[in-house]
Amino acid sequence: MNFSFAHLESFSKRILEKIGCTEEDASTAARVLLSADIRGVDSHGVARLSGYVRLWEANRINPRPNLRIVHETPSTAVVDGDGGLGLVVAPFAMQVAIDKAKTAGTGWVSVKNSNHYGIAGVHAMEALKHDMIGISLTNASPLVSPTFSKERMLGTNPIAVAIPADKQPPFVLDMATTTAANGKLEILQRKQQEAPLGWIQDREGKPTTSPLGVKNGGALLPLGGDREHGSHKGYGLGSVVDIFSAVLSGANYGPWVPPFVAFLEPHPHPVGEGLGHFFGAMRIDAFRPAEEFKTHMDQWIGRFRQAQPVAGQQQVLIPGDPERELEKQRMQEGIPLLEPVVADLKALGEKFDVEWIA
Amino acid sequence: MNFSFAHLESFSKRILEKIGCTEEDASTAARVLLSADIRGVDSHGVARLSGYVRLWEANRINPRPNLRIVHETPSTAVVDGDGGLGLVVAPFAMQVAIDKAKTAGTGWVSVKNSNHYGIAGVHAMEALKHDMIGISLTNASPLVSPTFSKERMLGTNPIAVAIPADKQPPFVLDMATTTAANGKLEILQRKQQEAPLGWIQDREGKPTTSPLGVKNGGALLPLGGDREHGSHKGYGLGSVVDIFSAVLSGANYGPWVPPFVAFLEPHPHPVGEGLGHFFGAMRIDAFRPAEEFKTHMDQWIGRFRQAQPVAGQQQVLIPGDPERELEKQRMQEGIPLLEPVVADLKALGEKFDVEWIA
Repeated sequence: MNFSFAHLESFSKRILEKIGCTEEDASTAARVLLSADIRGVDSHGVARLSGYVRLWEANRINPRPNLRIVHETPSTAVVDGDGGLGLVVAPFAMQVAIDKAKTAGTGWVSVKNSNHYGIAGVHAMEALKHDMIGISLTNASPLVSPTFSKERMLGTNPIAVAIPADKQPPFVLDMATTTAANGKLEILQRKQQEAPLGWIQDREGKPTTSPLGVKNGGALLPLGGDREHGSHKGYGLGSVVDIFSAVLSGANYGPWVPPFVAFLEPHPHPVGEGLGHFFGAMRIDAFRPAEEFKTHMDQWIGRFRQAQPVAGQQQVLIPGDPERELEKQRMQEGIPLLEPVVADLKALGEKFDVEWIA
Repeated sequence: MNFSFAHLESFSKRILEKIGCTEEDASTAARVLLSADIRGVDSHGVARLSGYVRLWEANRINPRPNLRIVHETPSTAVVDGDGGLGLVVAPFAMQVAIDKAKTAGTGWVSVKNSNHYGIAGVHAMEALKHDMIGISLTNASPLVSPTFSKERMLGTNPIAVAIPADKQPPFVLDMATTTAANGKLEILQRKQQEAPLGWIQDREGKPTTSPLGVKNGGALLPLGGDREHGSHKGYGLGSVVDIFSAVLSGANYGPWVPPFVAFLEPHPHPVGEGLGHFFGAMRIDAFRPAEEFKTHMDQWIGRFRQAQPVAGQQQVLIPGDPERELEKQRMQEGIPLLEPVVADLKALGEKFDVEWIA
């Protein structure tokens, strides 16, 4: 069944106000949450709303955080998220990066004491409004095994980069540093289909096609899948995301990152505060005139779209194309939600006395 | 046969002086070149010396470049390499990034009008001496097909990130954004062995195991190998490297990047000048005290090394471990060169009247 963006956004906002968020914060958080649904990353959107609420019930989210810069230079800052919703901490920190870029050319912000921030891409895209390149990284609960490891040591640690163009739509890369995102596994689980080899390993570290492999103590594999196909590169990239997000800021890293689910306890001996993010903003005209750059980006994008496709394959895509197509479609036709998600949201509405159907 | 680092460095330096480099530039370039051999990236080291000389003979390298900053802000600069050796342009530009970081917290330099810069990692590692994180990217001759494309549109476009630790050796990621680097294919060609599926495609865009696939008009594949295993992510990362290195600076990008080999002509209608690089330096104490950070890096590295290995597999490695081990070994035992490389260097010595054996 489909629901309108406006309806789901307003419902999410009212729930977040009920747990104590200010009207402004609830509004920001709902916008960030719904940007995942509208772009097709269903696992990171409104389906997670009740997960955030359960974290709040477990006293692991502060609905009224005192967001502040605890250290800075002309082009850098460290932000303390004060245990707030990542959905609120991230937009604050990205704005600090953008403000730094206005005066210093670039801005780089590492964040501690935060929580899950939704989809990486939406934060990077904030920079586009200012003719800047935006970068957004975050660490996450450990579900990924490095090459040769059977232990889970890293999250799916995404990398997002948003780059403005002129007449062409922007280039927006938003990728987990694993072969496949966790959300794709969830879809296979529901459909009871096998996963391709190279996505997951079982609890002994052996390759498996069972979509339940991760649930049963296995792990997602770094981009590359195995050593022969470069999994040490995916592992290396996920590690850089972890270090920039958490070792630079003072958050928890690697296996110490607190789990998103409220039924799992955080590590008893944390090495930092909460989880971490990293944001960057680079003013285009800190390098060359913005119009000149954007004209060349149009040429870059146009040329790549025209690359000769392999027989029987579709046209070459530019990062961000599939999500933008889906956004157009879902704005018109609404956002499809699965029955269990609808039931979960209805229950949430009843619990907090918020009407599900407006 | 093995040759000492000192011998090969001194030989390379003398050859570079013969083509017109200053003593200082020849010394810098020889050091950068040999850092590839000593770290085991044989394809990017002294084996390429005669390739650079042939480019100079084709008037495609300026041995006396006027390296200069053509645009800057407190944290950024664009450097014009004036057609110089990338081996000389890159250390100059990385130093600009480091100097910017000293005052602004971070420094970011995009470079145009350059040439092949050796291995990415060595430039990033310059930052380590200053308690900074170093980043080094470059575009390169088109050998890689994006997902769904049979045309070659990108180079192997590497990403290098060097991060200091305290008692542990530094974390040094240095990776092509392809499944396998071109140098690995060359080894298979010499041994007449098949390549694993997922490394290359043939000229029709079909997966192939022939190590001659790329030579015969095929292409290297982006990290991930195919769509199902995330090749769109490797393609996206290679694209970001291309855009940061060349669209930001005004160099050639994508299929317009000039080939390294002198027997192939550059594109008749270039979209920029030479090829491009991108460098970053981030002062650790622009985020948190350097000692604190490095202590946590020691803990990060120590914990990852101790991750439970899969039965029958080796211990989990930290990016930079294999290269550092090889460096130790080669400093003692010398650098092994293949017979054709030795013959090529001897011929070069005779041509320029430089003694091969000192």
